Amino acid sequence: MTFTVRFGEQKDVPSLLRLIKELAYFEKELEAVEITEETLLTYGFGENQMFKFFVAESDDEIVGIALFYERFSTWKGPTIHLEDLIVTQSRRKLGIGKALYGKVLQYAYTNNYKRVAWEVLDWNTNAIEFYENSGAKYLSDWSVVQMNEEGLLNFVNQNI
Amino acid sequence: MTFTVRFGEQKDVPSLLRLIKELAYFEKELEAVEITEETLLTYGFGENQMFKFFVAESDDEIVGIALFYERFSTWKGPTIHLEDLIVTQSRRKLGIGKALYGKVLQYAYTNNYKRVAWEVLDWNTNAIEFYENSGAKYLSDWSVVQMNEEGLLNFVNQNI
Repeated sequence: MTFTVRFGEQKDVPSLLRLIKELAYFEKELEAVEITEETLLTYGFGENQMFKFFVAESDDEIVGIALFYERFSTWKGPTIHLEDLIVTQSRRKLGIGKALYGKVLQYAYTNNYKRVAWEVLDWNTNAIEFYENSGAKYLSDWSVVQMNEEGLLNFVNQNI
Repeated sequence: MTFTVRFGEQKDVPSLLRLIKELAYFEKELEAVEITEETLLTYGFGENQMFKFFVAESDDEIVGIALFYERFSTWKGPTIHLEDLIVTQSRRKLGIGKALYGKVLQYAYTNNYKRVAWEVLDWNTNAIEFYENSGAKYLSDWSVVQMNEEGLLNFVNQNI
């Protein structure tokens, strides 16, 4: 199978959402996906742009995506965060994920970003090994904390 | 001691850098801080803005900061990331950190962000307890991966 990797465009947004939902379904979290094509169009392009994405395309079909955006390190300066790297189930193990991953790293290097960061599940040892072999550092002692919409509402109401 | 919390301005950048370095020194990582006042001025304000920050001020002295920026969740939409929450060593345990933390959560709620996220060291049980009591969720199984500038250079050179 051959595929090409290029920047995602507006026409790719339905495929982007399909892949986001495919992964969420696989993780049994489909109901947690609140995003819509409209939101992806609003924040993926134009003056409100908050992210960019690469797509892997094979026979006019989008078979994988890598979605990323800028962050800011108070030690290093501008950095890139790789939010999602998804390859459709039927096209795994063909090098598509690796190509998308490399494209993001190349983009960060070319544009002088100081770092690329992402998050991984502790038990996903295959992924961690792949990342470490590519030169990334797995910071096992740094974990993620999140306050969701409901938490924010409760916090604000309790702290008026 | 009384203090007020307000948005950081350009005049606060020297204090912001001082607090960033104070924390890095405390963590024995001072040499890792490459950021300058100029970089903070470039990306903290104006058309290149990548972050905002709140300051806690007491008797015309900046005694704490909370620095944050936008991220984008492919499940939820626009979110906030709390990058740094720093209170100067001599003014700890006076409620300054809590006030700055609350200000960021309030900001996120008021501006309709879907989530606030940050990172914590696994062994920092006091912090984790504080976050959980405030309604945040500690995702102990999600860890951080980073590829730094040297890693990017090596990766790109090996994958031409």
